[in-house]
Amino acid sequence: MDAFNKLNLKNQSSKFICIGLDTDIDKLPACLKDTKNPVLEFNKAIIEKCSGHAAAYKLNFAFYERGGYEGIKTMQETIAAIPDDILIIADAKRGDIGNTSLMYSEAILNNMNFDSVTVNPYMGYDSIAPFIKNPEKLIFILALTSNAGASDFEKQKLENGLCLYQLVIEKVNQWNINGNCGIVFGATKYEELCENMTRIGELPVLLPGVGVQGGSLEDVIKTFKKYRRRNFLVNVSRGIIYKSNGTDFADAALNEIVSLNESARLLLND
Amino acid sequence: MDAFNKLNLKNQSSKFICIGLDTDIDKLPACLKDTKNPVLEFNKAIIEKCSGHAAAYKLNFAFYERGGYEGIKTMQETIAAIPDDILIIADAKRGDIGNTSLMYSEAILNNMNFDSVTVNPYMGYDSIAPFIKNPEKLIFILALTSNAGASDFEKQKLENGLCLYQLVIEKVNQWNINGNCGIVFGATKYEELCENMTRIGELPVLLPGVGVQGGSLEDVIKTFKKYRRRNFLVNVSRGIIYKSNGTDFADAALNEIVSLNESARLLLND
Repeated sequence: MDAFNKLNLKNQSSKFICIGLDTDIDKLPACLKDTKNPVLEFNKAIIEKCSGHAAAYKLNFAFYERGGYEGIKTMQETIAAIPDDILIIADAKRGDIGNTSLMYSEAILNNMNFDSVTVNPYMGYDSIAPFIKNPEKLIFILALTSNAGASDFEKQKLENGLCLYQLVIEKVNQWNINGNCGIVFGATKYEELCENMTRIGELPVLLPGVGVQGGSLEDVIKTFKKYRRRNFLVNVSRGIIYKSNGTDFADAALNEIVSLNESARLLLND
Repeated sequence: MDAFNKLNLKNQSSKFICIGLDTDIDKLPACLKDTKNPVLEFNKAIIEKCSGHAAAYKLNFAFYERGGYEGIKTMQETIAAIPDDILIIADAKRGDIGNTSLMYSEAILNNMNFDSVTVNPYMGYDSIAPFIKNPEKLIFILALTSNAGASDFEKQKLENGLCLYQLVIEKVNQWNINGNCGIVFGATKYEELCENMTRIGELPVLLPGVGVQGGSLEDVIKTFKKYRRRNFLVNVSRGIIYKSNGTDFADAALNEIVSLNESARLLLND
């Protein structure tokens, strides 16, 4: 099943929550500390409990790279533990000259078997082209991010009146000839999200920033409902995976995603 | 020795060439194909021959990530083979929300022991802050890159009259309170380099794009000479490491870097 179909099937069954596996060895429950690979055991337990309810999983490369090659091995073993019908997003924010982006694309989308990857648009079209040439994969391009620093460059006004991130959204729509481009838009930037729904058009949207970062699930869902759009993912990382620090951590994560799904369903009146 | 001192000592002895270890398993000499780890053998041979002449080594993460965790292991083993007095740059182009950039910084600068890393400024100050807080490391922030796509966003004119990449350079100068920031500026963008030398000021500059990408070593050296600046690195990857495809590949790389150093010295009249 290609990436777009995976996302679509989950979205159509009212699943919009992407679980961010930003697994930090320093934050794991004490009960896992003596296992051979605590990060892997933690991820597998979350995946086993939550996969019936997750719309997607997002793996943040930083948290695995921190463990060197063994951390990357754990990341690859985590990918292998995720059921085939669930979209797996590499939160890698890559982008480089064409020759290098091609290598990243092969690394992440082919060899590591991710369905999807986040990419950084700063270096322009040829830095993104190698990723989007495979129509079976879904490429989320950073538009307006959830952090305060988004004001430094992303929100800079251009000579033509658009903000930089708005130009990015317009370019992504132009580049989307394979129908496999999406954007990243911070859930913390609610006002800008409302203002740009028409500009975003039919692009799938990945929204990080709900929970610890302060974004509101309710605001996001209401906005997409208003525009009759269902192709979006709200990422929650720390708010789900660290809900409990005890032996019940996976059950607590399950309860949290079930509760978030229920909230989403009520807001959509499904 | 901290990163700045490493760079400084090489620059003062008229070494400006950074060898890009963009080692592609598909391009290695046939004589290495049957070794246990051809990429590592290749890198070690280049390092052994060329370290007396290199100003720095730059490892492009994409080429190692392509091999999965074993590729990252090879990257870490390559780092261990580089002499202590030579700057090692992680060409990783990272940048994420603060919490994640902190993890990348720990991964790359502490755990993997790189002296330096390239970062992408799109997400703004808080995405870069965790990298630049360590004064012993040298952080190269993308300004104007060597590829054609630089026109899509980096060269966009802002409302205030600056191009986006010029605003990045000005911000980097403001953020440089630890004196450990540099910029990446494509050697293929000669005209813009000349126009921005004053804006760049004292920031060290990493210049990719000489060789296969079409940038000219002569143009770069003449520009820095004119402004009496010596803190720069010209990266050459494919032009050095793939100079020969035979058993003499390391000698051919050595000859090439010696020749590039000699050209640089003549141009500087050292």
